[in-house]
Amino acid sequence: MSELAIVGGGLVGALLSVYLGERGHRVDVYDKRPDFRKTGASGGRSINLALSDRGLRALSNVGLDDEVRKLCIPMHGRMIHDEKGALNFQPYGKEGQFINSISRGGLNLLLMEYANRHPHVDFHFEQSCEGYDLEEHRVLLRNASGEDHVLQPKRVFATDGAFSAMRYSLQKRPRFDYQQDYLAHGYKELSIPPAPDGGWRIEKGALHIWPRESFMLIALPNLDGSFTVTLFAPFAGPEGFDALDSEAAVQAYFEKHFPDALEHMPDLMADFFGNPTSALVTVRCYPWAYGRSLLLGDASHAIVPFYGQGMNAGFEDVRVLGDLMEQFGDNWDRIFPAFEQERKPNADAIAELAKRNFVEMRDHVANPLFLLRKKIAAAVSERHPDRFIPVYSMVSFSHIPYADALREMDRQDRLFGEILSWPEIESRWDHDYAERIDALLLGEGAAV
Amino acid sequence: MSELAIVGGGLVGALLSVYLGERGHRVDVYDKRPDFRKTGASGGRSINLALSDRGLRALSNVGLDDEVRKLCIPMHGRMIHDEKGALNFQPYGKEGQFINSISRGGLNLLLMEYANRHPHVDFHFEQSCEGYDLEEHRVLLRNASGEDHVLQPKRVFATDGAFSAMRYSLQKRPRFDYQQDYLAHGYKELSIPPAPDGGWRIEKGALHIWPRESFMLIALPNLDGSFTVTLFAPFAGPEGFDALDSEAAVQAYFEKHFPDALEHMPDLMADFFGNPTSALVTVRCYPWAYGRSLLLGDASHAIVPFYGQGMNAGFEDVRVLGDLMEQFGDNWDRIFPAFEQERKPNADAIAELAKRNFVEMRDHVANPLFLLRKKIAAAVSERHPDRFIPVYSMVSFSHIPYADALREMDRQDRLFGEILSWPEIESRWDHDYAERIDALLLGEGAAV
Repeated sequence: MSELAIVGGGLVGALLSVYLGERGHRVDVYDKRPDFRKTGASGGRSINLALSDRGLRALSNVGLDDEVRKLCIPMHGRMIHDEKGALNFQPYGKEGQFINSISRGGLNLLLMEYANRHPHVDFHFEQSCEGYDLEEHRVLLRNASGEDHVLQPKRVFATDGAFSAMRYSLQKRPRFDYQQDYLAHGYKELSIPPAPDGGWRIEKGALHIWPRESFMLIALPNLDGSFTVTLFAPFAGPEGFDALDSEAAVQAYFEKHFPDALEHMPDLMADFFGNPTSALVTVRCYPWAYGRSLLLGDASHAIVPFYGQGMNAGFEDVRVLGDLMEQFGDNWDRIFPAFEQERKPNADAIAELAKRNFVEMRDHVANPLFLLRKKIAAAVSERHPDRFIPVYSMVSFSHIPYADALREMDRQDRLFGEILSWPEIESRWDHDYAERIDALLLGEGAAV
Repeated sequence: MSELAIVGGGLVGALLSVYLGERGHRVDVYDKRPDFRKTGASGGRSINLALSDRGLRALSNVGLDDEVRKLCIPMHGRMIHDEKGALNFQPYGKEGQFINSISRGGLNLLLMEYANRHPHVDFHFEQSCEGYDLEEHRVLLRNASGEDHVLQPKRVFATDGAFSAMRYSLQKRPRFDYQQDYLAHGYKELSIPPAPDGGWRIEKGALHIWPRESFMLIALPNLDGSFTVTLFAPFAGPEGFDALDSEAAVQAYFEKHFPDALEHMPDLMADFFGNPTSALVTVRCYPWAYGRSLLLGDASHAIVPFYGQGMNAGFEDVRVLGDLMEQFGDNWDRIFPAFEQERKPNADAIAELAKRNFVEMRDHVANPLFLLRKKIAAAVSERHPDRFIPVYSMVSFSHIPYADALREMDRQDRLFGEILSWPEIESRWDHDYAERIDALLLGEGAAV
């Protein structure tokens, strides 16, 4: 009998196996995909991801941050491309603050290999979870030959993602709240290949955005000189995916909206018609613990990708679980409830922040008032680094709970609504208004 | 091959089979329960229900209303029982307006027998739906011996209830929004038996409520002289189900809170410890149509029972589907989208109204200001029957779309908030304020 089972060997499951392995547990990880060492581990999901401070802290707790940094490309800010190809760089935070573009497959493989250094941690591939027996607490697995077998581990951790098979079974448990909701937008992955000399065709140290109000294109750099490009657009309507049904339509769309990207996309048609158009789901559910099982990562709180926090939130789950193991040892009856109570409000908050950031990325970043707000926030933070943190920095460069960041966002939205209405704010914000701005932003209800 | 299949032969499925049968369709109805004619059709669900005008209209369209009325006991209002057993009768509407207590099992049987008069309508029992194949549009059924067979009807109607097996399969279709959320309250069915002379021990022509703020007891009359009694209470807390874990605790609880009910409940302990404590779920999803399938009734919009509208909303689904069949014949490709677009906003509205009515029933009905509001609304409706309808009447005694009733509720809540704050409103509402009240309630945004 397995001591501890992990269903789903993706990023969160693999990191969890490291944490559990470090504490000396016997751990078996089951994944439905073929062995990552043979086929890579992207599994149809997005190719690269943004790793920021929350994720790095979880990695650093098990000594993995230095290894992981070797796979990272720092992105210091947003590079905004307008319709004519003019650029505008917006730093993410202060000098030296950045998020990291990292390959999902490369990171997953590294985590698995690191976990496998523990002889009592094993990965089992082509093991598809077919369900969880709510009464007997058995996990039903099916291998590639269609043979079923049954596990009855002491505890089972479900890290099998947004479409978690474990969760579909748990959905039928008594009084389980569950919600899946889809955006009207979808996404499609495209690419910018490396330059002929092997370098990057556009600025490497930024996350590129072509904001077009109701839709947008983004690009994140890869180590091999390429960029992974993603088009986010509505499914329906004249500027949506449904209308992009021919090479001529796609060509015209990119010429009109993204001319400076198009010139770097020789494989556009093959990418566009070869890659799927995928949907964007938010999943909320509760409770996460049931009997011997615990949902975590995307299985418990899948979010849309616009804050670059999906993986970071999942890694923070593991970090918090690690802290609780420090506190309670292997008393899972204490750990599971404490975990879900601490994490649930934060998972809900990052889900909300991620949805809001879509509007920011595809629309606001091109708005002069938004840019002014960013400048003012940066200046206040510069003057009072210990008393004011812009919300983006709170989410990406701090470990302040997401729920606190969301409250702070609401507070800052309200206050900036006022500040930006002051007469001649554009010219006066950094001298005559500075004191008044500080008083307001550092006043009642300030987060730090 | 079946022409049309209905999965779930409960109230909505059985009525739908009548509608489809009337139009000459070949219809097969599959239900997982044993034959209703042998075992009754309550199936663990609530024993009696409130039938009001929307449901009656759907029945009357197929000539069934007279037969059904024979099974009904009219309830003309709420009979409120206070802690000391004092009574206060609150009429539901005008003289002659009432809702009806009816047995789920009796009504289901009648509908099935009525459908079976059509030789091309067949009911098949002990046929459990195990899923719906999203690609091949096949329904997988399993009989009582565990044998599987597969249907591929031209169209399949899923009326298999709040925990619809069809919907669990459809949940995995692309971009299907889905939400199940549970109240913190549960319910347990109890009973008041007939009096020794075969009559009713308490007033027969009312829905009885013992409102106790965070919990309540209700009772609905049955034809045999008994009442079905339901306790709604939180699961947790000092006055919740978890604390009612011994006969002594139950006895003390009823003595304290429901003394005048207790004296009529000789079977309390057997009922309390023999019957399950059930949860209260709201289910929302969309779209309802997929390929050849359509979700309707509780399968598409399960609601909490506090407005007595679950069955009525499901029957109204069938009535609307009937209207669309009049319009579009058997052009299901026209009917399905038109149906879901018309019904979805109304399903969402009655879900919201039902949740709000729980607070009204368990708390507000005992509040003097609430009673005053009811009196004022009734007076305005009396003076201007064509221009003002109280929200309860709109929901229970009209066919105005639920979405309009919800908007009207928000409007009336706002206006009564103002009216009830006027000086000495208690004594002046029916003379000096009457004109001002009329002007406000019949003014801008009035529903009728």
